[in-house]
Amino acid sequence: MSAQTAGAGRDPEAIDVDVPALRRLLDGKYAGVRDLVRENLAEHASILDDAQEMSVHDFRERVLEVVQLMAETDQTGLGFPAEYGGGADIGASIAAFETLGFGDLSVSVKAGVQFGLFGGAILQLGTKPHHDAYLADLIRTRLLGCFAMTESGHGSNVQALATTAEYDAEAGEFVIDTPDDRARKDYIGNAAAHASHAVVFAQLVVGGESRGVHALVVRIRDEDGRPAAGVRIEDCGPKIGLNGVDNGRIWFDGVRVARTSLLNRYAEVTEDGRYVSDIENPDRRFFTMLGTLVQGRVCVGGSAINAAKVALAIAVEYALHRRQFGNPGSGTEELLLDYGMHQRRLFPLLARSYALHFAQERVAADLHEVFSNIADEGAAELARRSLEARAAGTKAMGTRHASRTIQECREACGGAGYLSANRLGALRADIDVFTTFEGDNTILMQLVAKGLLTDYKDAFEDLDQLGMVRFVASTAVETVLERTNARSILERLRDVVPVGERVSDDEPDAGLLDHEYQLEMLTWREEHMLSSVARRLKRGIDDGGEPAEVFSLAQDHVIGAAHAHVERIVLEAFIDKVQALDDGPNREALKLLCDLHALSCIEDDRGWFLEHGRLSNARSKAITAKVNELNRRVRPIAQQLVDAFGIPRELLRAELLEFSGS
Amino acid sequence: MSAQTAGAGRDPEAIDVDVPALRRLLDGKYAGVRDLVRENLAEHASILDDAQEMSVHDFRERVLEVVQLMAETDQTGLGFPAEYGGGADIGASIAAFETLGFGDLSVSVKAGVQFGLFGGAILQLGTKPHHDAYLADLIRTRLLGCFAMTESGHGSNVQALATTAEYDAEAGEFVIDTPDDRARKDYIGNAAAHASHAVVFAQLVVGGESRGVHALVVRIRDEDGRPAAGVRIEDCGPKIGLNGVDNGRIWFDGVRVARTSLLNRYAEVTEDGRYVSDIENPDRRFFTMLGTLVQGRVCVGGSAINAAKVALAIAVEYALHRRQFGNPGSGTEELLLDYGMHQRRLFPLLARSYALHFAQERVAADLHEVFSNIADEGAAELARRSLEARAAGTKAMGTRHASRTIQECREACGGAGYLSANRLGALRADIDVFTTFEGDNTILMQLVAKGLLTDYKDAFEDLDQLGMVRFVASTAVETVLERTNARSILERLRDVVPVGERVSDDEPDAGLLDHEYQLEMLTWREEHMLSSVARRLKRGIDDGGEPAEVFSLAQDHVIGAAHAHVERIVLEAFIDKVQALDDGPNREALKLLCDLHALSCIEDDRGWFLEHGRLSNARSKAITAKVNELNRRVRPIAQQLVDAFGIPRELLRAELLEFSGS
Repeated sequence: MSAQTAGAGRDPEAIDVDVPALRRLLDGKYAGVRDLVRENLAEHASILDDAQEMSVHDFRERVLEVVQLMAETDQTGLGFPAEYGGGADIGASIAAFETLGFGDLSVSVKAGVQFGLFGGAILQLGTKPHHDAYLADLIRTRLLGCFAMTESGHGSNVQALATTAEYDAEAGEFVIDTPDDRARKDYIGNAAAHASHAVVFAQLVVGGESRGVHALVVRIRDEDGRPAAGVRIEDCGPKIGLNGVDNGRIWFDGVRVARTSLLNRYAEVTEDGRYVSDIENPDRRFFTMLGTLVQGRVCVGGSAINAAKVALAIAVEYALHRRQFGNPGSGTEELLLDYGMHQRRLFPLLARSYALHFAQERVAADLHEVFSNIADEGAAELARRSLEARAAGTKAMGTRHASRTIQECREACGGAGYLSANRLGALRADIDVFTTFEGDNTILMQLVAKGLLTDYKDAFEDLDQLGMVRFVASTAVETVLERTNARSILERLRDVVPVGERVSDDEPDAGLLDHEYQLEMLTWREEHMLSSVARRLKRGIDDGGEPAEVFSLAQDHVIGAAHAHVERIVLEAFIDKVQALDDGPNREALKLLCDLHALSCIEDDRGWFLEHGRLSNARSKAITAKVNELNRRVRPIAQQLVDAFGIPRELLRAELLEFSGS
Repeated sequence: MSAQTAGAGRDPEAIDVDVPALRRLLDGKYAGVRDLVRENLAEHASILDDAQEMSVHDFRERVLEVVQLMAETDQTGLGFPAEYGGGADIGASIAAFETLGFGDLSVSVKAGVQFGLFGGAILQLGTKPHHDAYLADLIRTRLLGCFAMTESGHGSNVQALATTAEYDAEAGEFVIDTPDDRARKDYIGNAAAHASHAVVFAQLVVGGESRGVHALVVRIRDEDGRPAAGVRIEDCGPKIGLNGVDNGRIWFDGVRVARTSLLNRYAEVTEDGRYVSDIENPDRRFFTMLGTLVQGRVCVGGSAINAAKVALAIAVEYALHRRQFGNPGSGTEELLLDYGMHQRRLFPLLARSYALHFAQERVAADLHEVFSNIADEGAAELARRSLEARAAGTKAMGTRHASRTIQECREACGGAGYLSANRLGALRADIDVFTTFEGDNTILMQLVAKGLLTDYKDAFEDLDQLGMVRFVASTAVETVLERTNARSILERLRDVVPVGERVSDDEPDAGLLDHEYQLEMLTWREEHMLSSVARRLKRGIDDGGEPAEVFSLAQDHVIGAAHAHVERIVLEAFIDKVQALDDGPNREALKLLCDLHALSCIEDDRGWFLEHGRLSNARSKAITAKVNELNRRVRPIAQQLVDAFGIPRELLRAELLEFSGS
């Protein structure tokens, strides 16, 4: 295919995409908020244009400046109550944060720490006195804070944190201590330079009795910016990326705070030293507190997906300008995007970005729903657990996708992609840790599996994998499966499309573009993996295995089942979106992307489908051929599909594109 | 499996690895050279310990300092003739460069530019006057140079370079010009700060006639370090990594150099302005010149494989110290390395590092052989073409492996892996561009495929993919296949192990650990992919397709065939190594790794094997189960397997490990 026949706009068979309408569809309910953030990012882009050339100190100061400028436009306070100057709209605040993913990710992380983690903890774990004391100031960045949870020796296992907050009843104060270096707070954003306050997670000790992990507001710097008495702060130093964020380490040595510093929505210590909580079970209490922080995960997932879009926009545009090697017929070199391999590198990732966009839209809407109705706490609990699992899965999938996509785009732009002056370099470096923070992806996928295998309402007895193994071992496999809605979807689909009757090897590609077929494949895989992993765990325990050993042997299987689940719900969200659209070119374009996404998912795991007799050899090969064919159809509309993301030109830093034209 | 039963040294079934002997085996013939480089790296490690905290300027100066200190020990001159102070041992020079992969990669790249690219071009493309003028000084770093090949608009397509060197017969000089910004030299290492000279690749114009790309030595800075007259130099600015290397851009405006500046081993311009070359065909001449630079690819591949080993050594040690989540039975948290998923993340990559090590050893030995017998140029040509393909494949596979391994290790170490203070951060950033430089991996794999499909001796007519398509279209598929030695291996193996008689679904794992079975699988895949891609290209042309379109549609298939070939030769190298060893624990350990590597390769591509009827469903599942089982057997000797790499402690920057212990 030469550039002449394949070029956008010159192919009479190309879908005539309506870019503004597609952008409106992607922007959805919060288009206005997204545009406000786009404008802010574009306006302040020049402040950070030379970020990679600055000293770490200057870069941090500039990032703070941008965050403060953004705070002036109210975008950063959208999720807070109106009485403190907030927007009282959680969905809007998520949309704003997601859109920050188009810009420098140091800004997005800095804002996430200040408003999402620090502000969110005070809002969700605190009560009115804390709100009155801090919210108005922190929304406006007059008060800067950090979120001191992670410790050097305790990353994902928050229940094992070792920092202590012991109540001194005589003084009516908590005394905060770091018992050893493994308990120092580590990687804490906003701590090395800017935060005056921290929400500190520590083991609460009252009357000599440990009450588990709780959060307190602690002043860590005095008015002059020096560490407060008893507080030691160290800079984590340079990082692979995100150097505009000041990560630090904190040690506490007998630091005293008032009794009212305890964020006491779920538990209280009375003046006379009694520990009081409405939630009796300590595990349940812990996970209820942690659950309020789910918004952070939703935001991280959303901004990662948007960062992937930026990379794709750059790589597609580059490949539509860059020519490589001669086409003797035409006398010019071929456009990179006309190479089949280049299409294979980029287009399935483009399709997946659309899929994840719609899955993210759904999890954000769920979160808005659940958290806007906080009064009804009892009834909403199951919805919350389900939300947590969905948020964990979308975060893991979205951040992994972003890492992979940005890396692929970097490589697809060759050496030019390696320079810091081009956004891909910084993006690659910045995105890297997204798979780790706000919950390591492996741990999050275990959380998803646990939710599926144990049913959400039983999730509080013992969160770890061993509890899950014991629970599954005590339950019938059928019971496990009835709880997932994979089964009911399968049954519904089987009524519509009877398996095995449709596909013969004479027509191996029949029905591949049928969304019900695609969804059935992913749902069948999910159900099969869940039931087989449940059986395997049961068998392991029945055979006298230790839970830890049984889990370790099956861990890849457990995570595989979670992955199958998340891929199914992502595809479902995409299909629902396509089916809700009116006929027209944009529906056709989204249907094309949805098909490409679905078939790429099946192709990526065709080994599994073949092993389990769900694909014939001929059909498996037909899927690969169909993916190539769909890529060819995406080619002439690739530019429109990335234009619809609505990424301001200022944020693409087009130096990469400057000399790639012919 | 609890830490107690799985811990190294406490498992009575663990293989009793002899670490020093295994290290000697890995170090091979050039153990002495490797130890010299290790000592140098360890001794100078402190110079770069705070590299990530320095300004770019200071970092560059320190890297130069280290390179200069290393030059004092003769290690950097090993590949040059003795009369100029070199070691006259190409194999030794490759071993030295490979070992630099254990250290800061800016040092390795800076050394690669100075001695490998700049020095190598003068040695290989120049003649005695050039050797006399430059070699002694450049070996000792009294003269610093760069390799000005790549242009902004011309990355992989070197034949399309646009810089010109026009001969002015009256003055007896060449005049070098950069016609436009797409022709500026770009990403040139050593150019932004240090090089006084450059080997410049340009279109030679003699008597108004263009003679294709040739290389000339050009002075780019004067004695005071200012750009020479007519030369403009710009700094590429910060990069994702490798910031200790000063990459720059160069423009030439009427820069005059003497006629003798042309590196004239393969072509000459006489004083009176006649162009003379022993190689008549201009394509053949071009590829002969380029072929002399193959050593750079071999070195890059080798150092990338060693960088991957560093990451694995850190990640394994971290996972043997770091505990995460409780084992209620034992009262302690589990070691990360006892988790099945963690083993799956790291051990197949560890096995692949061993496999690639031995494949690299072979390509380095081939290169030594071919280049140590340069007198016999005619006869050696086929050997050279074959070496170029092997070098391209090993470079592509080794650098891709390194990128993937270092990323996986970074993620396996969580947030700690993201800090620059820990080597994983810098490694991750530094390795990223290895997949691009010294030949983009996609282009290199096409080169491999072309060699296989067209037979090496015909490679000079037209290197690009369109020439390949035309060639294949004109040849019988059987002829294509007879040229690969895949067929003869298959025939030999079929005599030994008749297909289909050995495996029944009653015993789906029978023979999986049989090396002949493993090799047969990879060889069968290679032959099948090559023949099917050849048929597809023929059919495309027979059906009246344009070569460009035919190639584009089949490009992923072409690259897949090349990948299958390289995986087969890598496995072959590993198996040969194992089979040559005496019985004993080290043979047992290497056999275990070789089995893990082979079965991981098959598992990774089991979709393909299933599609093509080469795996039954039951056997495919048995392979996955066997990979897990082999991982369990690697677990107790994992530390010994990374210790055998012999990476000096100083280079592991153990801050990561400091607080991970219990």
